[in-house]
Order: sequence, then structure tokens, then C-alpha cells
Amino acid sequence: MIVFNPIGYVRHHSDDVPRHWTVSDIEGDLDILPEYQGGLVDISAGQRIVVLFHFDRSPSFEKAHLRQKKRHTNEIKGVFSICSMIRPNPIGLSVVEVLAVQGGRMRVKGLDMFDGTPILDIKPHIEADRRAENESTHPVT
Amino acid sequence: MIVFNPIGYVRHHSDDVPRHWTVSDIEGDLDILPEYQGGLVDISAGQRIVVLFHFDRSPSFEKAHLRQKKRHTNEIKGVFSICSMIRPNPIGLSVVEVLAVQGGRMRVKGLDMFDGTPILDIKPHIEADRRAENESTHPVT
Repeated sequence: MIVFNPIGYVRHHSDDVPRHWTVSDIEGDLDILPEYQGGLVDISAGQRIVVLFHFDRSPSFEKAHLRQKKRHTNEIKGVFSICSMIRPNPIGLSVVEVLAVQGGRMRVKGLDMFDGTPILDIKPHIEADRRAENESTHPVT
Repeated sequence: MIVFNPIGYVRHHSDDVPRHWTVSDIEGDLDILPEYQGGLVDISAGQRIVVLFHFDRSPSFEKAHLRQKKRHTNEIKGVFSICSMIRPNPIGLSVVEVLAVQGGRMRVKGLDMFDGTPILDIKPHIEADRRAENESTHPVT
């Protein structure tokens, strides 16, 4: 059993939340709790960040959810090949663009979570194609 | 309080684990528990997948960890701008390449976790630059 606690919450006023961050222009705030705000110090406008969050309003995962219909194509896919909110561990991942940082509040664009969603972690966004570049500057020897 | 359980474990025989997946050529297995193996059905060799995992051997997060030294550059950075294993919620994210899938065992390349690390989720890898492409095929209307 692994226990986590929210580091903050997503806040926005959109009723219509897109199915995925790749098709979202929704702007809103990531409100980070006071005890974690010091960790935001190197995040600035223009960056892309990875937000891990808790799908706190998903139904419980059942065996029947191992394969699910993709919302926009109707294909049936294994749960680990799609971004469904019904997952064994309901963790979501979105890449959003930072518009502004003010104290513990980050204004971002590209939200696909509901207002009030608990945030679990924020990470730098690293493209898989940075792989080759990193390898040449920091070789494993 | 948010409770998760492992869906499987990372297995490999390398003593020297690189600091990050972008600089790792380590091969090993993702062993998925029987009750979740049905969700792997659409994953095949050649794909890149996102692995979310539990940093189960990290020290507890303290206020002093809000800013940390990056291991390979010695820069001091806010925890949400680096991939340190010491985080408020110790969740790791790696992008690995699938070499083979056999039942509940996936052979992958690019591991940066310790042998025995609990896996929390597996997701399709979507480049942020797919954004524009997705927007044109599935516009938000």
C-alpha cells in the first residue's frame, strides 16, 4: 500500500473539459500548498511542465476495464495504451504550458482535468528526443 | 490520503543504475501482476511507453528538500524542476522502449530504476509536439 497526499489543486472555471491535454486550450491555475511552494522557484513562464494528478472522481477499476473504448475513436484498447481516467491506479499525466508564476499559484494553459483535481507532482518536461543530446553531453562511462 | 498499489515490478540485473532514462541503455523486464496483464494487449515491440513508479527507497521528504543539488551539474534547483527521487510524493516517470512483450512480462530498454521498484502505471508516450497534429484531426468544437 502506497500513500500519497495532494501537493495542491487544479482550479479553473471551464464547464467543458477536453478529453486530453493535446487538444486543450483551457487556462487555469495550479494552486500549490504553502509547504511546497518553495519547490516552484525555478519554474517560469513559457516552460512546459508535467503535472501528475489524481483522477479522484473515477469509478473503481474492475476487471472489465482492462480493455476500454477510446472516447474519440471507439477503438477498444488495453488500458495501458490509452489515457482513460479509469485505471488500476488512477493517476493522470498532462503536459501544460506555464503562463505565469505568482507565489504558489501557477497560471497554465492546456488543462484537461476537472476543477478541484488533486495534484500529486510536478516535473520538468523532457522530450524523449532529448535522449541523444543528453547522451552526448553526459555520457555514461 | 490517496492509496495506490503496485501493478507490477521492475526487474533487471544491473548494479549501476544511471541517473536518468535519457542516459540509460539498461535492459530489463516490467513484470505485471496477473490481474492486470490483460491491459497490455495493445503494447508491442518498438513502442515507447511511459512508466510511472514508486521511489520506494527514497528518504522522507523534508522542508530542506524543496531545493536540491542536481546530481550531474551541482546546480541547486527547486524540486519541481528536477527529477530527484526525493519528492513530496515519490513518483518517478521514465520513458522506455519496448523490446518484446510475452504474457505479463515486457522486455524494455532505458531503465533508470532499481531492481524491484514497484510500478504504478503504464501509459502511451505522447510527444508534446503531437499537440498540433491532434488538434487538426480532432478539433475542440
